[in-house]
Amino acid sequence: MKKFINAVDNVLAESLDGFAAAHADLVALGAERKFVRRREPNRNTVALVSGGGSGHEPLHAGFVGHGMLDAACPGRVFTSPTPDQIVEAAQAVAGDAGVLFIVKNDSVDRMNVEMAAEIADGKTATIVTDDDVAVEKSTYSIGRRGVAGTLIVEKIVGAAAEKGADLATCVALGERVNARTRSMGVALTSCTVPAAGTPTFALGEDEMEMGVGIHGEPGRRRVKLAAADAIASEMTTAIAEDLAAPAGSEALLLVNGFGGTPTIELYLMYNAARRMLEQRGLRIVRSLVGSYVTSLDMAGCSLTVSLLDAETTALWDAPVRTAALKW
Amino acid sequence: MKKFINAVDNVLAESLDGFAAAHADLVALGAERKFVRRREPNRNTVALVSGGGSGHEPLHAGFVGHGMLDAACPGRVFTSPTPDQIVEAAQAVAGDAGVLFIVKNDSVDRMNVEMAAEIADGKTATIVTDDDVAVEKSTYSIGRRGVAGTLIVEKIVGAAAEKGADLATCVALGERVNARTRSMGVALTSCTVPAAGTPTFALGEDEMEMGVGIHGEPGRRRVKLAAADAIASEMTTAIAEDLAAPAGSEALLLVNGFGGTPTIELYLMYNAARRMLEQRGLRIVRSLVGSYVTSLDMAGCSLTVSLLDAETTALWDAPVRTAALKW
Repeated sequence: MKKFINAVDNVLAESLDGFAAAHADLVALGAERKFVRRREPNRNTVALVSGGGSGHEPLHAGFVGHGMLDAACPGRVFTSPTPDQIVEAAQAVAGDAGVLFIVKNDSVDRMNVEMAAEIADGKTATIVTDDDVAVEKSTYSIGRRGVAGTLIVEKIVGAAAEKGADLATCVALGERVNARTRSMGVALTSCTVPAAGTPTFALGEDEMEMGVGIHGEPGRRRVKLAAADAIASEMTTAIAEDLAAPAGSEALLLVNGFGGTPTIELYLMYNAARRMLEQRGLRIVRSLVGSYVTSLDMAGCSLTVSLLDAETTALWDAPVRTAALKW
Repeated sequence: MKKFINAVDNVLAESLDGFAAAHADLVALGAERKFVRRREPNRNTVALVSGGGSGHEPLHAGFVGHGMLDAACPGRVFTSPTPDQIVEAAQAVAGDAGVLFIVKNDSVDRMNVEMAAEIADGKTATIVTDDDVAVEKSTYSIGRRGVAGTLIVEKIVGAAAEKGADLATCVALGERVNARTRSMGVALTSCTVPAAGTPTFALGEDEMEMGVGIHGEPGRRRVKLAAADAIASEMTTAIAEDLAAPAGSEALLLVNGFGGTPTIELYLMYNAARRMLEQRGLRIVRSLVGSYVTSLDMAGCSLTVSLLDAETTALWDAPVRTAALKW
């Protein structure tokens, strides 16, 4: 295992301390590192709280700040945050407008958020993201997995909350964005969880995992390594057929690296995916390319397409000031 | 070789096309993809032109835009851009205030910029960055290599040019920033150049290359893999001893990933490096953590420390709108 670490048990704590120190202008770390919150919470707006296992950085802590999340709860690597983490995060940022939890569709994540919502016993609601078209049921989820599309839900709902939208409006908006968002991933290599010390799954030198999950969960099939165009074609086909959007629909295309894939390759995949989606009649009007929802050091990427309308385009464009997204 | 590519000869062209399409609001691609320029060049200010071999993305094209570079010339992977690329880029963005070339200290990069400056035969000047303390002389350079510190020179001088500083002022500022900037890198794995198809150098499963260059050039020594703190200690010691800054000096700390290292590890290294630099009396007042000056898919990172004063801090903080840096 070749990683920059000191001790396996301290990876998350030391990384969070670094994150909080590097971005002290934007965020603060909760007691015992249970959550990352906006440095100056806005008590008059709906508070957005997300979280999940660590190892997907910058998701979610990197999206805490003006115009996006109010708090994020980092679980241990690939492990759900505990209900008490989520309760404390909600209490730290909640005002009278209520708390909206945004959670990826993962059985334990969802259960812990439900428990937290009961304990918090206030004005709360939950959005569950499930954008991954690769498989209908996975290792940790009943129904589709929530993956990189979560970023888009967090950005658009965060912008609405920042403008003063109430809880019901934020929920409806988040569900609308999630329903119009589809993703699919592919792994060229496995990731290695520090506590395990060895790769999560074995891939031959000439193999890739098509439809992989962001924890290395199995995808649709193990196949021979293929050219970028062939990979992009399979992924865009799966996404577009599932979206079934009318010709001329406007969309955001997110090409997301899994942690071990360099930028030069992500833009090459963007080029292929954009061309293919436009051939299918979609109009790519917004783009994001980078490693935003990662799987530790996995080489691979995901494509996400999210249909936009005038309202969601304006909310996507609205100012955001977080560690990982700024405009 | 596990990469998202179609054909080895098309990697750069397809990646550049994707980059230009994804960021069409900020940049435009020159004829035959010879350069990337600001979508709307400002003809009244000094034009900053940089470039170098590709494979270091987002450097340099990712830094083209308001408040940073006016144009960047991408050579083939790890290969200098040609003089005619540099001349055409300069002609595309030059106004009456002149052109400032910013070039990493690499023998061929420098020669080609000198030839371009002669051909352009106008009001031009050149800043050469040489921030790498690892070795005094390397495979491709006489004198120290220019590495991630180049980003800091480009950001600070870009802000000054945007505010209307003249050519002589920009040159003096860039030389001052470069003289106060030091970097050092470490590789946990080699990179793989697409055209070669195999790793540039061989590293054992328990080895790392301390002081590596961004093309995989040899560093100070091949050593056994060590804990993050031990790695950070060797790098911060080399940097701080060379900088020899008075106690209390204010500095920017850049922790830069080489392409295959995930964000969670970069923040862990930031945490270690920051603590060590502060123990040496430096005050870390600005931070940047991410993969900005990469070496294809190499796992590894570099640390850069740049001493700041009131003027350079304000220029670092000035608004920037590029693909890779925005605030």
